[in-house]
Formats: sequence, C-alpha cells, structure tokens
Amino acid sequence: MADERLTDIKVLAFDVFGTVVDWHGSITREVEAMQLDVDAQRFALAWREGYKPAMKRVSDGLQGWTKIDALHRQILDELLPSFGLSDLNEAQRFHLNLAWHRLDPWPDTVAGLTRLKRRYVLTTLSNGNVSLLVDLARHGGLPWDCVLSAETFRCYKPHPATYLGVAQLLDVAPEQVMLVAAHHEDLEAAAACGLRTAYVERPLEYGPAQSKDVSPRASHTLHARHLLHLAELLGA
Amino acid sequence: MADERLTDIKVLAFDVFGTVVDWHGSITREVEAMQLDVDAQRFALAWREGYKPAMKRVSDGLQGWTKIDALHRQILDELLPSFGLSDLNEAQRFHLNLAWHRLDPWPDTVAGLTRLKRRYVLTTLSNGNVSLLVDLARHGGLPWDCVLSAETFRCYKPHPATYLGVAQLLDVAPEQVMLVAAHHEDLEAAAACGLRTAYVERPLEYGPAQSKDVSPRASHTLHARHLLHLAELLGA
Repeated sequence: MADERLTDIKVLAFDVFGTVVDWHGSITREVEAMQLDVDAQRFALAWREGYKPAMKRVSDGLQGWTKIDALHRQILDELLPSFGLSDLNEAQRFHLNLAWHRLDPWPDTVAGLTRLKRRYVLTTLSNGNVSLLVDLARHGGLPWDCVLSAETFRCYKPHPATYLGVAQLLDVAPEQVMLVAAHHEDLEAAAACGLRTAYVERPLEYGPAQSKDVSPRASHTLHARHLLHLAELLGA
Repeated sequence: MADERLTDIKVLAFDVFGTVVDWHGSITREVEAMQLDVDAQRFALAWREGYKPAMKRVSDGLQGWTKIDALHRQILDELLPSFGLSDLNEAQRFHLNLAWHRLDPWPDTVAGLTRLKRRYVLTTLSNGNVSLLVDLARHGGLPWDCVLSAETFRCYKPHPATYLGVAQLLDVAPEQVMLVAAHHEDLEAAAACGLRTAYVERPLEYGPAQSKDVSPRASHTLHARHLLHLAELLGA
C-alpha cells in the first residue's frame, strides 16, 4: 500500500461475466445437462460471441433499451438453427436462457470477495441486468454490498455514464473507485473516466480449448492472478 | 401459507428508516455523544419532521433531484439556530449529518432478515440514497440481496415509479412483491400499484415519549409485530 494511487480507494466495482463467474464452464455444463446433440463448448462460445454486437445495437440506438436477458434470448433464437437445434421448445429455450442466472463463481471468488469486503465497499458493475446479478449472488453466495448494473444507468459499458455512475451513487470521487475486470477494454474505458483499475487473469475464461493472453499491461493500476491475489496486493 | 395472496411472492422490499433501523434512538445517541446542550430526543424528532416537506419540494419540482444526504443537511442547517446551535462548525455538521449512515437496526432485524432471505429476494426500497443504504447495511450487517433506493429511480416514494421499478428491475409482477413498512401511507401507495403489503409495528419509532398507533388495518395483506413475526407469518 505504499503506492499512493491505492491509499484512497474506497469502492471496488466488479465486472462479473468472466471476472467473477465462469460463464464458459457453466453454460457448457448446462448445455450438456440438457443432453442436446451439440458441441457444448462451441455452443457456449458462439452464444457469448453474439453478446457484444447485441449490446452495440442498443448502444448505437438501433434497438431501444433492452436488458441482457432479452439480448441473450435474441442471440439464442438466432443461434439455434445453425446448431441444428431449431426444434427446441419454448420451455427449453426459457430454461437455457436462464442458465446465465446460474453461472458458478471461480474457485477463488467467494474467499477473495469476503477478504476484500472487510476493507472496501464491493459493488457489481456488470452489463448483466439486476435480476440476473441478484440471482448470481444468491446462487454463488457473493457478498456484494450493492448490485449496480448497466440497467441501473440504462446504458452499457463501456459508456462513461456507467463508471461515473458508480462513483456518483456511492458518493466518492472517480479515483476512489477501482474497476476489477478480466477485460482490457472495460478497464481502459474506466481509466479514461479517472477510475483505478485492476486486471484479473482468467486464462480459462473461454474454456480450455481457447487461449487467452493474460500478460500484464502497464496501463492498469494493478495486475492480479485472481481475487485472493488482489486482496493481497491491496493489503486486505 | 394457505392464503393465496402469499403463495406467489418472490421479493420482499423493505422501507428502511423506522422499519429496519431505529432512527430516533440512533440520532438521539449521536447527538448525546456530541455533548451538545440540547434535548437530544426533541432534536431527533425535529430533524425527522423536516424530512417529508423536503422530499415534497423535490417531488413537486420546486427543487431539482436532491439526495437525502443533501436534504438532511438542508434541514439540519435550518434547524440548528432554533436549538441555539448556530455555532456548530462545518466538521461537526458534516459528522452529525452522517449519523443517518450509522443508524442501528432494531433488535429483531438481522435475525428476521436472515430467515426471510432463505425464501425471498430481499431488497431495500427506501428514500435514503444508495451510499447511505450501503453504509447502513455494512454498519448493521443487513443481508440485502439488492439495494434499491428512490435515487435509483430519481423520484421519491410514494411515487408509483418506485414500487413498480422494484418489480421491473427484479423481473417479477407487482403482485409478486411485498412491501414491508412501518408506515401506512407507504403501504397504501404500494398496494395501489398492485404490490402486497406487510405492516410492521414499530411502537418506539418516535421514541419512548411519543406514542404511535400500531393497531392493525384491514387494508394491509399482513400485520407483523416485528420481522421475526413476519418470517413466521410467511412460513420462512
């Protein structure tokens, strides 16, 4: 904590998909559990691939405000034919879509958050909608002080209103908030708003078959292997 | 749980000041701890008395959106002269104003919420701002799943947008939300939006010197003596 950029941090805001929970492993398991005749890992990746373009349609104003649950469902409905799964019925689609509410935390998540909570206010800052984030917290026992979402601000990250909105609602200056994420783009947008940033390596985010470059970048305030390592770096 | 109005409830939304935490006792203790030459109980009541008119100024559009912290401070600054306390300095005023972030829960609160959380999603729905509610939760160990505030919706209860906003963000129908509050007006406004309601007796809300009529009213779905009693009524 000799680093003066760290001494005044009051709030840790967490990206969720990939950073706190393992979407790839969880979606893969859910697809396998439904015994669909499909490569579950490839299906999980394809579903997730539709995520950024779908949010971009909303951010660009081509589609009115739409929560992630509805975007996930749009992507799913578009995806199923290309996987030969057009005959999934409504109940199956509904169930599968809610798999995003049942994502498991990474093994270090709960222990890491619990340690960090002793010293910092912990909030989510996720593009996932509020009900999804609440379900994930109950499912995984995530000890948030506060659940903030793109839905709270009605715009998606990386829009500045999301990062600055966290500071405003929690009544701190932007530089008193540290965004914790496994994605450079998210962290860079937060840094541009004056937030501190912590990159968390999640080498398995896209599954064991796909490699992810988790090498440090100088632009981030901190580089942590996982959330217990982040607690250590922050002296929490 | 034979009552069919109760079987489909998914979310309990809690009023906070008076319902979950003891503002009168806590403000009184904070004022006493500052050793001000003043009747601390009367001071607490007078401060709270300014609360509704202040919110009404915002709701009526006479004042732009203003969070409760700022309203509490306005009321405090207006109040001090009449209590002979004009000479309180800025640091003292700042400290005193944040007493609203340090209100203690009622004795049954944590045990009651912990039981209710096993079966229901628990959220705040308070006119207190988000940072205040987060501080109260950390101070009292309140196990919320979600912190929602008038500030989330940028309008104060009893505006319908607050009650309906809870249902919308948590992705349930209004009748799947039960508002829990110690105030009839709040509950009646929620009921008008289709929410279920639970009145909680808080006979000491205004301190031991002032009586509060806590007799049951037929208009509420449930009438609970305290939060453990509410858990019992809901079979949680």
